[in-house]
Amino acid sequence: MSDLSRREADRPSRLARAAAVGGTSGKLCPAERVIQLLAAIIEPGDRVAIEGDNQKQADFLASALASVDPARVHDLHMVQSVLALPDHLAVFERGIATRLDFAYAGPQSRRLAELVASNALKIGAIHTYLELYARVLVDLTPQVALVVADKADRDGNLYTGPNTEDTPTLIEAAAFRGGIVVAQVNEIVDHLPRVDVPGDWVDIVIPSPQSYRIDPLFTRDPAKIRNENVLMAMMAIAAVYEPYEVRRLNHGIGYATAAIELILPTFAAQRGLKGKIARHFVLNPHPTLIPAIEAGFVDNVYCFGSELGMERYVSNHADVFPIGADGSLRSNRALAQVAGQYACDLFIGGTLQIDAQGNSSTATKGRITGFGGAPNMGADPRGRRHDSPAWLRAGREAGESLRGRKLVVQMVQTHQPNGAPSFVERLDAFDLAASAGFALPPIMIYGDDVTHVITERGVANLLRCRSMQEREAALRVVAGDTEFGRRQSPDAGDGLRRGGIVMFPEDLGIDVATATRDWLAARTINDLVTASGGLYAPPAKFRAQAVKPNATTVTRA
Amino acid sequence: MSDLSRREADRPSRLARAAAVGGTSGKLCPAERVIQLLAAIIEPGDRVAIEGDNQKQADFLASALASVDPARVHDLHMVQSVLALPDHLAVFERGIATRLDFAYAGPQSRRLAELVASNALKIGAIHTYLELYARVLVDLTPQVALVVADKADRDGNLYTGPNTEDTPTLIEAAAFRGGIVVAQVNEIVDHLPRVDVPGDWVDIVIPSPQSYRIDPLFTRDPAKIRNENVLMAMMAIAAVYEPYEVRRLNHGIGYATAAIELILPTFAAQRGLKGKIARHFVLNPHPTLIPAIEAGFVDNVYCFGSELGMERYVSNHADVFPIGADGSLRSNRALAQVAGQYACDLFIGGTLQIDAQGNSSTATKGRITGFGGAPNMGADPRGRRHDSPAWLRAGREAGESLRGRKLVVQMVQTHQPNGAPSFVERLDAFDLAASAGFALPPIMIYGDDVTHVITERGVANLLRCRSMQEREAALRVVAGDTEFGRRQSPDAGDGLRRGGIVMFPEDLGIDVATATRDWLAARTINDLVTASGGLYAPPAKFRAQAVKPNATTVTRA
Repeated sequence: MSDLSRREADRPSRLARAAAVGGTSGKLCPAERVIQLLAAIIEPGDRVAIEGDNQKQADFLASALASVDPARVHDLHMVQSVLALPDHLAVFERGIATRLDFAYAGPQSRRLAELVASNALKIGAIHTYLELYARVLVDLTPQVALVVADKADRDGNLYTGPNTEDTPTLIEAAAFRGGIVVAQVNEIVDHLPRVDVPGDWVDIVIPSPQSYRIDPLFTRDPAKIRNENVLMAMMAIAAVYEPYEVRRLNHGIGYATAAIELILPTFAAQRGLKGKIARHFVLNPHPTLIPAIEAGFVDNVYCFGSELGMERYVSNHADVFPIGADGSLRSNRALAQVAGQYACDLFIGGTLQIDAQGNSSTATKGRITGFGGAPNMGADPRGRRHDSPAWLRAGREAGESLRGRKLVVQMVQTHQPNGAPSFVERLDAFDLAASAGFALPPIMIYGDDVTHVITERGVANLLRCRSMQEREAALRVVAGDTEFGRRQSPDAGDGLRRGGIVMFPEDLGIDVATATRDWLAARTINDLVTASGGLYAPPAKFRAQAVKPNATTVTRA
Repeated sequence: MSDLSRREADRPSRLARAAAVGGTSGKLCPAERVIQLLAAIIEPGDRVAIEGDNQKQADFLASALASVDPARVHDLHMVQSVLALPDHLAVFERGIATRLDFAYAGPQSRRLAELVASNALKIGAIHTYLELYARVLVDLTPQVALVVADKADRDGNLYTGPNTEDTPTLIEAAAFRGGIVVAQVNEIVDHLPRVDVPGDWVDIVIPSPQSYRIDPLFTRDPAKIRNENVLMAMMAIAAVYEPYEVRRLNHGIGYATAAIELILPTFAAQRGLKGKIARHFVLNPHPTLIPAIEAGFVDNVYCFGSELGMERYVSNHADVFPIGADGSLRSNRALAQVAGQYACDLFIGGTLQIDAQGNSSTATKGRITGFGGAPNMGADPRGRRHDSPAWLRAGREAGESLRGRKLVVQMVQTHQPNGAPSFVERLDAFDLAASAGFALPPIMIYGDDVTHVITERGVANLLRCRSMQEREAALRVVAGDTEFGRRQSPDAGDGLRRGGIVMFPEDLGIDVATATRDWLAARTINDLVTASGGLYAPPAKFRAQAVKPNATTVTRA
């Protein structure tokens, strides 16, 4: 028999040290001892997974970790999905951690780039969510996992509530590798509404003085959707959803995709598409999906996480959302990424920059943003073997005789809100890679995975292009009045249009003059509340906007 | 508020009917009432997920389902990973079920083809495991899930033991969609060794009269490994593992991959590769991995399921395998497929047929075999963004400037054991597709995903081929003395060899005369037992072979 690893041998002594800090109350540790606890269980050089999610945050534990004495706890290797909080960077600034593997750093992307430049930390790699989950099971297994849940009982059983995200995956990665699992919870109760994570997998539970932070990242106010977004949404339905019969799909976040959700019950219904398209979503509970759900457009939605304010609406729609016996949502980011990858025929999302090869990126100079989940869902899953009409048609158009293709659609206005052109000869990602020392530029979606690019000018169907030159020409046509677009003659589009490679609104039967906000099934947050039967309770920052002199509906929750 | 679905409304009445059948003992239903129970909870037209796994089987429930009255329960849509038992087909033969979505049907592949031909059932699609899990969450959500576990308590908490496989995923898919979850267990106990699935997710528990069936599918007897397998294993290490520095990998099942595992501590160690290759496996606990583990070659192994006889060995190696606080393995097929897809740099496996484009298939005439997990792991995961030396080098060789490539290696002898050539102009899969009415032929691994083909003749590095003609020529060289190989002149290999596209053993410093079983770190099952320190307890069918007059070791368990 071989020796047990240091980690296995360490576990009992780490737990003994934890018990000494926490007192004698089993798995419970009082909040005021949290810093001592972390110092007791974490050793220099440990890999530590902290639950930094897209929406919810183990903020109390993050703050405690940033407060330990770096003389005692140092050289940590942080593994986390999202860097969302200043405390996620403070551990590097204070010399507690030196290495980072992650997936997304939206709000902290600029500071992260600065820290990398100053050698305060070394990035192992930027991942998609699903890649990072894969690696925490294989070669980034954590010694300590710091997670977050709604409630716990004294046996350590956890209730995550509707917003599960990474919790079960990070716990699984640590609990079965001799790691220590610490959960911050809002509340200790005698009886959980349901058990989401068995107490056998959890070592220590800390009641947090404040409820964990959670952000409503998937709420888009319909009032901010512009006519151009509606036009692009109409083209997406007419050029993609309808001809390919797209029934299973994932939407990125953004006003253009929110517009699609809001014109399903109007524009799509008028085209007779109810029951034919957009029946199965892999999506968080977007408030902008309410009108389509109420219109009976949507069979079901599988969720990565939840969305603040949508709890009651979701609980009342067990026909559509995954609901536990306790009546609340069950989400699961790892499984939803799998579902988005393998059970969907289409991914549609926005981007910031597209180059002449169709590569797209949200990376900009001086910011290390990361990828999140888009690359996983916005790529052709070549291990897919089951067919569907959408997948087969896309494969045929691409000239594939033996396999289908996933539809990957990028929607982007020719110019960003700040006036910068969205189409560029060279992505900022290349400069970022050079300055940050990455082996490859952080491309979000590769050009050879993109099937359609939609701008307010038209649709480029890249599946039908038979050469790189043709792809580039199609992209320059839909790039419109940008330097990128003006680099070819205005009549270059004629041949592409005849070949069905480029489609303008009129080719799709869409009158641009009537492509307006009038199509939106809800035009304000209040309209969404009304459509929900008063079940949707918008977070304060959206309620503030929703209160208008002429508001005819009242938020009931 | 919209109406609740039929399913949601039905759940209470289904559970009430179940309670009436089972008596008044909460979630427990006596074994003798199982047929009445299934008839009470299943309604005509239901989608039913039955746990037909790669290794373990919900055999008691499968038998009961095949015994219900088809006049009462009919038109079921079966959703399951594997069709392994005659009862899995009996439901179609008896008119209880009519539709099937699945991933693998190895042992029942011939009978399945016959039933399809006679219109006894309609196949929705053949999936990889991960695709099927994705779809049970999205558009193949089950009304009833029939699963299997080792033990349950009276609250319905389940202990799956070391062999988890599909159990948590199928339960998650049903429990949160208003479905009914029924688990057969070997034993009802007061205190579980650990909780693997919370009782809140499980509706009914049935103690089965016999322990569930489980097969040792991942055991390969070293005595059956031939010199040719060793030669191919040596080439795999010299041509792939070593130059690409492959640290994270998955092995298919077969004698060639078993040979690789068994020459890590000999051939690979002699080349100085310990610590440099094969450190992180995504793999079931293959007995043939024992010598490499004992030699300290392997950092860790993440598992899809377990392997019969390996329980004690695995439990004693918490440094290598995922082990719970109870001391036994935690496996998880869904997460292991994710790990195999995204955290591995290499997949290597065998096949039955390869065509001129490099497409490979295990489908043969008259058998609908399915895919299992190979296509998921044997494909380039285009959503991958993190780099590694192996991935970057493969990408560079393929001429990619912006992304890496996964190494996908197919090992196949030029002839199958029955003498049939492994290289063919046309895969049997094409005929099967035509006769079974599939939209596309069931190709296991597509040629454009394969990076290396290894036969006893040599290695073809398809990454370096710059045209389809070059790929085809390389394949014909390694096809050796087959009709396929003889279709080009014997000296066609010279140019390919100079370009590093084809490598013969001598190009890799391997003397074919010394490529023998002598390299194997264990040559018999008994050797594996010895290497395990007596912890490996081979199943009876392997023990029978292992008992030899001159055996110098004793099975201790």
